[in-house]
Amino acid sequence: MSALLSADHDTRAIFALLDQYIDCLDSDRLEEWPELFVPTGCYKVVSRENEALGLPAPLMYLYSQGMMQDRVTAIRDALTFEFVFTRHLTSAPQLTVQDDGTVRARSNFALYQSTEEGVTRLFCVGGYNDRLVHSGGVWLFAERTVVVDTFGIQNLIATPL
Amino acid sequence: MSALLSADHDTRAIFALLDQYIDCLDSDRLEEWPELFVPTGCYKVVSRENEALGLPAPLMYLYSQGMMQDRVTAIRDALTFEFVFTRHLTSAPQLTVQDDGTVRARSNFALYQSTEEGVTRLFCVGGYNDRLVHSGGVWLFAERTVVVDTFGIQNLIATPL
Amino acid sequence: MSALLSADHDTRAIFALLDQYIDCLDSDRLEEWPELFVPTGCYKVVSRENEALGLPAPLMYLYSQGMMQDRVTAIRDALTFEFVFTRHLTSAPQLTVQDDGTVRARSNFALYQSTEEGVTRLFCVGGYNDRLVHSGGVWLFAERTVVVDTFGIQNLIATPL
Repeated sequence: MSALLSADHDTRAIFALLDQYIDCLDSDRLEEWPELFVPTGCYKVVSRENEALGLPAPLMYLYSQGMMQDRVTAIRDALTFEFVFTRHLTSAPQLTVQDDGTVRARSNFALYQSTEEGVTRLFCVGGYNDRLVHSGGVWLFAERTVVVDTFGIQNLIATPL
Repeated sequence: MSALLSADHDTRAIFALLDQYIDCLDSDRLEEWPELFVPTGCYKVVSRENEALGLPAPLMYLYSQGMMQDRVTAIRDALTFEFVFTRHLTSAPQLTVQDDGTVRARSNFALYQSTEEGVTRLFCVGGYNDRLVHSGGVWLFAERTVVVDTFGIQNLIATPL
Repeated sequence: MSALLSADHDTRAIFALLDQYIDCLDSDRLEEWPELFVPTGCYKVVSRENEALGLPAPLMYLYSQGMMQDRVTAIRDALTFEFVFTRHLTSAPQLTVQDDGTVRARSNFALYQSTEEGVTRLFCVGGYNDRLVHSGGVWLFAERTVVVDTFGIQNLIATPL
């Protein structure tokens, strides 16, 4: 349950996956985002308060790659809001291998938004709770639950966090 | 003095210890916090200004595990302040093995507080200067000095940083 | 192109170099900063907007170690502004080995400034795009491009970021 990844190769591949996640979001390559999940993968946003109280109601729940792709299409086609650059800062992820060979990862993040005029604000602080699987020779997200400490702000869940 | 940890196992164990530290604080499992130190361990908070001037006076100085446990009891029983969620973001720690086999670790942190209503503020920015020892088969803190760039704010040292 | 560093020793040395960079800046040991570059090394600051649009005009461009040393002298001798402590937080760098043996590194950063009175503000958020070379037995910067999301603020490029 608490075993550490022994294969250095796997650790690097997982770190690269976690980095790809924030890089494709920050670089506005949203179309790559669903590709980081397995087809039956799940993306969830829950408030810190609900998580602490054990309440299951998520702010956002996409439970397949297809739903994530729909979400990206909606963002590209339908949503209108002021363009901002995003920048994720993440703390070093802590990995634990599960009995079934999947890996749990946990890390904290701060997400900043900057306007085209160069004005930056802290948008959201939270944590990532991930379940990662080795599938078809690569590591992918089976699940990413985003626990947000900051909520009740505009457009919080308009785009992936 | 500047040797790097050669044993991958030790590096992972130390990274896990540093992560446990922020996880038990952020998850409000304060009782675990003193357990991460050796019995004679020491927890210190110093202001950035005093550190830069070489002035020794700390803002907080607990020089045994027992004092830390007392502190946790005080927090649980006596202190009253508005509940907030905390979230630490830390930069990758830099480790150096000392001649005596202990390890020095250095990392930076940003500590955010969020209310139950989901409003987040930057609480404190600073650095961790650690001395870590291998004791009884596990790595523990012999000393953690928290250098705080942000001070003069309310409740700064009410809870461990 | 996308190969990972196989030698653990090199990875550690590169992580140590990246850490030295922020440590010498945060500790006001600016004179060490040019020493982390090769003599023909290059330090560039570009705005996020210009980078996104593919516009080359940098906010700051120093294309030799000598220019960096001049810059440090200027900061020490000529510039006058209120003293602040700085603190960099960086996300885990992602390294990729190039065909020619150099290494590309990418990481995000948040830079905080604190006054001597202990008041902290977020100064700048951005990313580091680096080209690192192994030279004379050590790893050094051949190029560091700092992409700043936050700009139009006072003194942004007065000191190295």
